[in-house]
Amino acid sequence: MDKKELPIGVFDSGMGGLTAVKELRDILPHEDIVYLGDTARVPYGSKSRETILSYAAEDLAFLKKVGVKFTIAACGTVSSVMARDNIFEDERSCGVIRPSVKTAAEVSKNKKIGVIATPASISSGNYERLLKELSPDIEVYSKPCPMFVPLVENGYVERGCIPAVEIAKEYLLPLKQAGIDTLILGCTHYPLLSGIISDILGDGVRLISSGAEAARHAQRLLGEKGLLSTKSGPGTLKLYCTDSADLFMENATHFIDLGGARAERVSLGE
Amino acid sequence: MDKKELPIGVFDSGMGGLTAVKELRDILPHEDIVYLGDTARVPYGSKSRETILSYAAEDLAFLKKVGVKFTIAACGTVSSVMARDNIFEDERSCGVIRPSVKTAAEVSKNKKIGVIATPASISSGNYERLLKELSPDIEVYSKPCPMFVPLVENGYVERGCIPAVEIAKEYLLPLKQAGIDTLILGCTHYPLLSGIISDILGDGVRLISSGAEAARHAQRLLGEKGLLSTKSGPGTLKLYCTDSADLFMENATHFIDLGGARAERVSLGE
Repeated sequence: MDKKELPIGVFDSGMGGLTAVKELRDILPHEDIVYLGDTARVPYGSKSRETILSYAAEDLAFLKKVGVKFTIAACGTVSSVMARDNIFEDERSCGVIRPSVKTAAEVSKNKKIGVIATPASISSGNYERLLKELSPDIEVYSKPCPMFVPLVENGYVERGCIPAVEIAKEYLLPLKQAGIDTLILGCTHYPLLSGIISDILGDGVRLISSGAEAARHAQRLLGEKGLLSTKSGPGTLKLYCTDSADLFMENATHFIDLGGARAERVSLGE
Repeated sequence: MDKKELPIGVFDSGMGGLTAVKELRDILPHEDIVYLGDTARVPYGSKSRETILSYAAEDLAFLKKVGVKFTIAACGTVSSVMARDNIFEDERSCGVIRPSVKTAAEVSKNKKIGVIATPASISSGNYERLLKELSPDIEVYSKPCPMFVPLVENGYVERGCIPAVEIAKEYLLPLKQAGIDTLILGCTHYPLLSGIISDILGDGVRLISSGAEAARHAQRLLGEKGLLSTKSGPGTLKLYCTDSADLFMENATHFIDLGGARAERVSLGE
């Protein structure tokens, strides 16, 4: 097959990476997309570095076997842990951290940037390190938000939803008080909370969605290499998961309109 | 070794089973205890039946290899899925469902019993089935509470904590309105929320902790068989986990005073 017409691969520990798929479909509607959600082992965010690395290696190997022209690790936790050793980002793949870090450094005027993500992503220190590499005078204010994924997965996302607003205030008010003008949403679940987050931080704070930035990064890289699809019809979406396909389909609808796409269950690491 | 002096094994997908360990140590202070938390794959509650069964089989095989005289599956999800086929409960082991169901049926006066647990436990239908087997006139009011585990694991457990109280009201007010006089806490994390739960339900509702009932069941069975330890000193506690031991130790302190016990990381299924 012409390399141009191979699909773009996206993987995540669970469902959150579907927000990156949504962004990809918006900006690259003709591309085929293959998604893998490692739902039998979700979440990765609370696990140790070495466990996360071994799971990510299996996810990558699976997509390589399926055959993709580019891979997005649409999992903040994997992207963060892997960015530490520069072992993942090259011309065939990217995580969700570097693209969002680059955009945040470009758009911030006062050089005070907030980062919210899972505990594993924050404690890796990668956001801070990468932002300071781009511009040493940036001040970074980080906050792990362990309750945001369960809130999103259980539908506590509407503006005014009391438990979500109370928990979000606890996480975000210190960042607001620090005077940030830009906030990186360093977990692909978090865009679903952007209404609540904006209400707390106000219009003066620009939200950077890590999934959207990774999608734009993929578009740019593939364009430069002449690897964008030349098809005219709508791209296909193929979904794989590692736990029940029915459960996956049911939960996925919180994140994305699946259209007619079906999920298939696969085993990793065999 | 004299079989009497073998440890009691307890396993869970993560930390929650430590509440059963706490109960065991209270009522059987001379017994040695071995705990396994499958932290690399936690949580089980959102996974499919067949995945849960294969994980549980590996947990059991591990404790059998270590050598225990009795095993408590201190995981509501595993207990529930296994109870469906009667494949786990015998004279050498028990889950946390049957003992709590038995106690609830005994103490309820108006025969209206509430059950709260993870979505997998509730959708298995086992609580309802087992309660009705004991007494067909019992009315069962079940409610899955998917946010309770993340709330507990992130420390939202104090009376008056707004997000926890709001979410708990959403789950519990329908049970209160139904007029229950007994509530089974069908997940070993939930006893940490018993203050909040009592405040909502009032003094008229008796809370049954599934971990405590399983501990009493183990005590009764071991006593009947003459298998209680005859040692006079305090029993030891040995902890195993499948992800980082440091992470386990850190999180375990939310649930139990570890004393000098250390955790050791092990691999399952090899």
